[in-house]
Amino acid sequence: MCELLGMSANVPTDIVFSFTGLMQRGGCTGPHRDGWGIGFYEGRGLRLFQDPRASSESEVAQLVQRYPIKSEVVIGHIRQANVGKVCLANTHPFVREMWGRNWCFAHNGQLANFNPEPSFYCPVGDTDSEAAFCDLLNRLRSQCTGPTSLETLLPVLVEACVEYRRLGVFNCLLSDGDVLFSFCSTKLAHITRRAPFGPAHLRDADLQVDFQAETTPDDVVTVLATEALTDNERWQVYQPGEWRLWRGGECIAQGLSA
Amino acid sequence: MCELLGMSANVPTDIVFSFTGLMQRGGCTGPHRDGWGIGFYEGRGLRLFQDPRASSESEVAQLVQRYPIKSEVVIGHIRQANVGKVCLANTHPFVREMWGRNWCFAHNGQLANFNPEPSFYCPVGDTDSEAAFCDLLNRLRSQCTGPTSLETLLPVLVEACVEYRRLGVFNCLLSDGDVLFSFCSTKLAHITRRAPFGPAHLRDADLQVDFQAETTPDDVVTVLATEALTDNERWQVYQPGEWRLWRGGECIAQGLSA
Repeated sequence: MCELLGMSANVPTDIVFSFTGLMQRGGCTGPHRDGWGIGFYEGRGLRLFQDPRASSESEVAQLVQRYPIKSEVVIGHIRQANVGKVCLANTHPFVREMWGRNWCFAHNGQLANFNPEPSFYCPVGDTDSEAAFCDLLNRLRSQCTGPTSLETLLPVLVEACVEYRRLGVFNCLLSDGDVLFSFCSTKLAHITRRAPFGPAHLRDADLQVDFQAETTPDDVVTVLATEALTDNERWQVYQPGEWRLWRGGECIAQGLSA
Repeated sequence: MCELLGMSANVPTDIVFSFTGLMQRGGCTGPHRDGWGIGFYEGRGLRLFQDPRASSESEVAQLVQRYPIKSEVVIGHIRQANVGKVCLANTHPFVREMWGRNWCFAHNGQLANFNPEPSFYCPVGDTDSEAAFCDLLNRLRSQCTGPTSLETLLPVLVEACVEYRRLGVFNCLLSDGDVLFSFCSTKLAHITRRAPFGPAHLRDADLQVDFQAETTPDDVVTVLATEALTDNERWQVYQPGEWRLWRGGECIAQGLSA
């Protein structure tokens, strides 16, 4: 299995602290040795760092930890391969341009007997995750005659996730750079930090940060992860079938699918 | 204007030496302060580093210089903005997935009154370069019912380049990860290095490398650049209208368009 990391914030925020915790699970405190990746939206652009090497040993991961890239939407992933060999093409998150926006996707889980109809977007690698992402975009695209926001497409999106979930485990994060969609099939948690901010301590490394010193009173920052990244805060655990849509750190829509 | 960098090799080769020379032109020995980017094919995957900052000051550029990523096809670019503001979305090279492969493109030049028909691939940013890349892929795709190699599409590709060139300056590099296509509208040069290898010295930094020590006798490595990167070797200058297709460091097709 893999681990997901997501962030939605109302001001450009760096994710160095959470990323540092996640990276430990990539071969150090966790077994996810088969690559990692993280995408940061910067305006309409997307900055993507990926490495098929274990994150705890990756020089690119060290750069990302040193380098406080500020973003309002982030999607990250560490991988323990089950479908598809260990290589760059199989490393999450996956990105496609649709309607002039960068769509970014990461998946935690596994789908059995998943053979979607070939259509416009095709996987480059051989993971079930990238195949699901392409199928998802093909479905969204086929529903619309022109550019449509992720928010408007929510019903189609949830329906597809419910269908994928029947084939196995399908926890995922998806963004068009504006909103962040999250779907929980088995395991996902989130925390929303807002004033008054306090200290946070990582579960996976002896690192503490005082968010009070790094934020303004209006900041709202939500972090999503497969499992809680800190041990002194209260993370909210998604229920199986639950989905949430985030914008600017706030949950703007949510639901529970059957 | 901008500067292009390309590499085609028959063995995974690092481009640290050439990249170091090019990076100096990004705000140090040259005026290309408005961002840089480089894409390395790794199998079917593509490793992309980009920064809208001047390359001579970019921490990500320093990482790439320190970190000998080996690849058989590389496309790089440094930018001096003329169309489109300085931001990540406007930073070359641009990438799109087509038929399950990563297509990567960089452009040097400027097109006037370029308003292609909107179609499947859409620009994310607002450069004429990305618009041309999307139009190019839309044309290639519209000619084919299924996956087709860049090599097979060569006539359509050259025809499109000839058309773009009528609108301004269009020097470009394009790859599907297998071959590297290069088109010269005004300025492009290449050098093919093979045994016996010798020393090379950068024009833009006091740096020399002895390729003899870093290669095997069977290696063939072609480097393409807007202007010669070394001052002690003989670079071949493309003629205006000339195009070449490279695979494994060798020129496998070439022509001169009107």
